[in-house]
Amino acid sequence: MSGFGLTITARDGAARLGQIVTAHGLIHTPAFMPVGTAGTVKAMMPDAVRGTGAEIILGNTYHLMLRPGEERVARLGGLHRFMDWPGPILTDSGGFQVMSLAKLRKMTEQGVEFQSHLDGSKHLLTPERSMAIQHHLDATITMAFDECTPFPATEAEAAASMRLSMRWAKRSRDAFVSREGYALFGIQQGGVFPALRAESAAALAGLEFDGYAVGGLAVGEGQEAMFAVLDQSVPLLPAVKPRYLMGVGRPLDIVGAVVRGIDMFDCVIPTRSGRTGQGFTRRGTVNMRNARHQDDPRPLDEGCACPACTRFSRAYLHHLFRAGEILGAVLLTWHNLHFYQDLMRGLRDAIGERRLAAFAAERVTREAEGDIEPV
Amino acid sequence: MSGFGLTITARDGAARLGQIVTAHGLIHTPAFMPVGTAGTVKAMMPDAVRGTGAEIILGNTYHLMLRPGEERVARLGGLHRFMDWPGPILTDSGGFQVMSLAKLRKMTEQGVEFQSHLDGSKHLLTPERSMAIQHHLDATITMAFDECTPFPATEAEAAASMRLSMRWAKRSRDAFVSREGYALFGIQQGGVFPALRAESAAALAGLEFDGYAVGGLAVGEGQEAMFAVLDQSVPLLPAVKPRYLMGVGRPLDIVGAVVRGIDMFDCVIPTRSGRTGQGFTRRGTVNMRNARHQDDPRPLDEGCACPACTRFSRAYLHHLFRAGEILGAVLLTWHNLHFYQDLMRGLRDAIGERRLAAFAAERVTREAEGDIEPV
Repeated sequence: MSGFGLTITARDGAARLGQIVTAHGLIHTPAFMPVGTAGTVKAMMPDAVRGTGAEIILGNTYHLMLRPGEERVARLGGLHRFMDWPGPILTDSGGFQVMSLAKLRKMTEQGVEFQSHLDGSKHLLTPERSMAIQHHLDATITMAFDECTPFPATEAEAAASMRLSMRWAKRSRDAFVSREGYALFGIQQGGVFPALRAESAAALAGLEFDGYAVGGLAVGEGQEAMFAVLDQSVPLLPAVKPRYLMGVGRPLDIVGAVVRGIDMFDCVIPTRSGRTGQGFTRRGTVNMRNARHQDDPRPLDEGCACPACTRFSRAYLHHLFRAGEILGAVLLTWHNLHFYQDLMRGLRDAIGERRLAAFAAERVTREAEGDIEPV
Repeated sequence: MSGFGLTITARDGAARLGQIVTAHGLIHTPAFMPVGTAGTVKAMMPDAVRGTGAEIILGNTYHLMLRPGEERVARLGGLHRFMDWPGPILTDSGGFQVMSLAKLRKMTEQGVEFQSHLDGSKHLLTPERSMAIQHHLDATITMAFDECTPFPATEAEAAASMRLSMRWAKRSRDAFVSREGYALFGIQQGGVFPALRAESAAALAGLEFDGYAVGGLAVGEGQEAMFAVLDQSVPLLPAVKPRYLMGVGRPLDIVGAVVRGIDMFDCVIPTRSGRTGQGFTRRGTVNMRNARHQDDPRPLDEGCACPACTRFSRAYLHHLFRAGEILGAVLLTWHNLHFYQDLMRGLRDAIGERRLAAFAAERVTREAEGDIEPV
């Protein structure tokens, strides 16, 4: 069964411009997926998310299985209908968040037993259960169940963890129910160790996934180490399938990863930062709570077409955050998501016009300039 | 100077259908004004507020003088521009909130000394200062500075308070700077005592305000007592000027007050309720946190055209409130404001078609039915 697939329309070095056909619509790549943790991209109306240019969002299996429960979501017509997002949705496997959020975890060959951080209820998450949950949620792209190897880890620890994930990848593949235009992605692990990344890539390639994620990065290793892993491991992934770098990242992380051949990204940074007062601009981040903005009639980012920048001043955004107003979180989240999608549009245009290296260099230079001078 | 005024286009009993011309656009009456306390109708984009049908919003002098400060708002182009609301804005005088929010208040003939609830800073609010603040904010409709008589109060207390407010009304009138299309409203006081309401109305009429508010109600006296005061005191207000019932109210309070000749209303109930999970329907309020909604695929209110009702289920709204998601507050505030504006549209249509009594009776009957049965 198929109806899902990447078409590459241009290349610039290792970078690829493309589009992915899915059961729920097209995704232009390189793509950034806003995170809709618990059935909502926090503080955003779905049509506003679409309006920024996002074509696919991410949902979290761990959160949704606990509340409202995947069977409830299925009875209500699936996650697309539940949250009014008819476009593609990728769900993670739950593995990463079980390790970071749940209590009293116990990992075995079978899977992970844990207690809910919400009510202490006991659950078992296995490759088979993760596939069933993501099926109930009606995920367009299902992620194989894996263990995100902690950082730092010794090579022996990373190897054992990766090999467990590869056995779980096989079980995920076997349990996944194919549907036209739906996909299952495998996840490469192996920490920062080239031999392990190569072993993992080989193991996954044998399972013929519809796409391949690079997992276990953006966990504290730093940008330089992350780029080194990408330089070595991305070429090992099947060239004709989408490549997804999980949990990344800051704008220049994304630029560097696109240069190295990554097609898809997700990260909570734009939404989380938006709620806490950090705004993204091409000249770096701006803390809207800072008193320097209190009399500033200028928009957060002169070149931005989002509602926060076209209708409101820095002084107003500052006021909203100082006063603890919900609209502050709404507007800055909106801006940050718009900024990220603007970045992706810029990257796609640059690849199409074969000027990605210049584009990337200019972004690095601009970000180093820092914010505009106060009024 | 003028350019501000009410045109009455139809009557049904004591009720009036009309429109008010202002410097910032038309207001169709009877009108409900959403409350934009601190320069934002909480959780709402201004264009969404407009989209519900609201034509005028209310801003709070007390909050805005303390943060961000009225002179800052003036430097930034006034409140309309600051918060992207080009339409009419009414600001209260600050008197009511000084008494309910500020610390260490001291009232004299001159005005009220108080300490900010935000930082303890000392301020003096007088009729002259209140007029200056509202002028700086660029209020379309300025309210005279008054004391909202506490409830309960003896007749002697209510009389002393009312007479102080009438002396302050004269000082407000003298201090107000007229501009084309801007207005100053006087506020009738007198508690629940007919003789005092009459004395207050007479005192205000001599000052020739552009509109008249009924103050000191919705402070705990109950709907029956409030309607009794309106029955007696509204006919004493100049018939050709807008009449504004401050701080009211619940839907049936508004219906009853329109029947008694009131043209304008404001209340935090729809917005505050929206943030805490209470949704309004013609069959009464619905607590979206209640577990009865968790599997309910139906909209909150079948007949409602707002985004919360046309795009999402009760189950989804319930999930958002249980999960503490900002979108829950956004959607339910949106619905509630839409519900209130639908009510005002219904009232205006009913007056225009001289069937207000039947409309009012039907609303009372419907609200008594209670929510639809669970699925």
